[in-house]
Amino acid sequence: MKIEIKEAVEFLRSQDDYLILMHASPDGDTLGCGFSLCGALQRMGKRAKAVCPDEIPHRFDYMREAVTEQEFEERNIICVDVADTKLLGDMKEMGDRAALCIDHHVSNTEYAERLLLRENYAAAAELMYEVITALGVEIDRPIANCIYTGVATDTGCFKFSNTTPQTHIIAAKLMECGAEIAPINYAMFELKTPGRLKLEQEVLKGISFHAEGHVAVITVMKSVVDSIPDIDSDDVGAMAALPRQIEGVDIGISIKEKKGGIFKASLRSSERIDVSEIAKQFGGGGHARAAGCSFSTTFEEAERLIVEASCAAVRQAGLI
Amino acid sequence: MKIEIKEAVEFLRSQDDYLILMHASPDGDTLGCGFSLCGALQRMGKRAKAVCPDEIPHRFDYMREAVTEQEFEERNIICVDVADTKLLGDMKEMGDRAALCIDHHVSNTEYAERLLLRENYAAAAELMYEVITALGVEIDRPIANCIYTGVATDTGCFKFSNTTPQTHIIAAKLMECGAEIAPINYAMFELKTPGRLKLEQEVLKGISFHAEGHVAVITVMKSVVDSIPDIDSDDVGAMAALPRQIEGVDIGISIKEKKGGIFKASLRSSERIDVSEIAKQFGGGGHARAAGCSFSTTFEEAERLIVEASCAAVRQAGLI
Repeated sequence: MKIEIKEAVEFLRSQDDYLILMHASPDGDTLGCGFSLCGALQRMGKRAKAVCPDEIPHRFDYMREAVTEQEFEERNIICVDVADTKLLGDMKEMGDRAALCIDHHVSNTEYAERLLLRENYAAAAELMYEVITALGVEIDRPIANCIYTGVATDTGCFKFSNTTPQTHIIAAKLMECGAEIAPINYAMFELKTPGRLKLEQEVLKGISFHAEGHVAVITVMKSVVDSIPDIDSDDVGAMAALPRQIEGVDIGISIKEKKGGIFKASLRSSERIDVSEIAKQFGGGGHARAAGCSFSTTFEEAERLIVEASCAAVRQAGLI
Repeated sequence: MKIEIKEAVEFLRSQDDYLILMHASPDGDTLGCGFSLCGALQRMGKRAKAVCPDEIPHRFDYMREAVTEQEFEERNIICVDVADTKLLGDMKEMGDRAALCIDHHVSNTEYAERLLLRENYAAAAELMYEVITALGVEIDRPIANCIYTGVATDTGCFKFSNTTPQTHIIAAKLMECGAEIAPINYAMFELKTPGRLKLEQEVLKGISFHAEGHVAVITVMKSVVDSIPDIDSDDVGAMAALPRQIEGVDIGISIKEKKGGIFKASLRSSERIDVSEIAKQFGGGGHARAAGCSFSTTFEEAERLIVEASCAAVRQAGLI
């Protein structure tokens, strides 16, 4: 059942012993929502804990300052930034019993007993800011840090087109509450692990250009990833953004070797090309600016297919 | 003479035939201020033009949409984001006759007849937003794009510690006026020329670490820069940020070979080290987080000196 902020507040005030679930492969938005809500409920005198099916990367450690570790029998499950219980990994069954979901994904499957949804918000953390404010909890520095992280990470630090005037106004209010934006943004957007740096260098060595430079392709082979110590999936995933950053490139392609001879192509595009149309030709999908598809074939064949389809799209758009 | 916004508005309303000067090696803030003020004055029915002593990089071309080219005899000179007339290159003498300066640099030399200064603003463009609003000019999409560019570029897209709640509130207002943030931010923060990408790769090949990884050094040799076609000073300058982005690095050093056997070291640091103290040891200076100094010696000697001083600073800070 879809509900509004007022009803979410009534529910949160009337109950206790909350278990807050954050999605697998956690990002700044789900973690920011989980820890800020947990901290807010604790400040109301409630018992609450926030958990994630996957390990939380160390760069988010500062968020734990917002909460106190509590042991209690959990009675009410809340999912934050979780569009589908499939995204909860081992915790899927708990998600299926969710009393409340707070989310911003248009694809939300409405699995929870109560759903507070804002599809037009850039980050679920923007909605969490409104919920915590409506709960009457004063947003202190640690809670502000969590919410700010969600807002900043889901908008590429206010760079992406999902940013709205409201996003900036919430950021301003969080700064007034003490959000420590410089170290957070450094950790989220500037910091590179030595492994990521090494992988970038290896991957960019082999970059190739097609269609008069409108298409760029990089390849992330398993043997290369395995040869670099201390590399995580975040580092590997970050490669997908590289080819599209090069001047003149309208379609950036990253081909990643997965286990069992599968090659996954990640496509990124300028506003002149809809890459979801290209991905669909190979059974994949996604958004206009970011899409993907998989190939169970040789690397050479996968590369040939995706490059040909991309060059055709560039021609069709009249760019060459 | 220092003045307030009200007096700047009175001056701008009472005069005509404005020549607006933007500083050499132009950045988004000086250009955003220059073109937005020029456009605003033209919308008031005044004659105005904005000029820069250096060529304006193509990625700022969209700013010209805010203005109309006009030919007239210039009678009143305005400098924007120009702390010192030395920063005007060939146009220094015109700057010395400035009737008005609008700026945010604490180092402003008060050269202009009237100085409107806000040292605590992250960008001069924040102040320009206030001036144009006070002039009663409606901020349309092209003017909003110019001001937004100044605000975004001087704050690293709201990432740096100079960002204030006001910065975000102005960004929200500019979005409401139609600022096209996604393409602007792509051009300012994501786009890399093929030359920059190549230089990054070359420079990172030779990165070295010292003091248990707390100090990282890259070298930008003239022969390497000269071997890459279509590279500009922006691309070369951007290298200085790279070493400090690596996890664990507290002092990032970039040593650049200049003409005539001079080596310039650019230092960037975490909040745990004040690099201006290191630069001062060699006759340089700057800020706590970003400083620089020059060496008229061999490369090996320059590297040895700056690395030794940096390692000493790391030890003194108790990091090793």
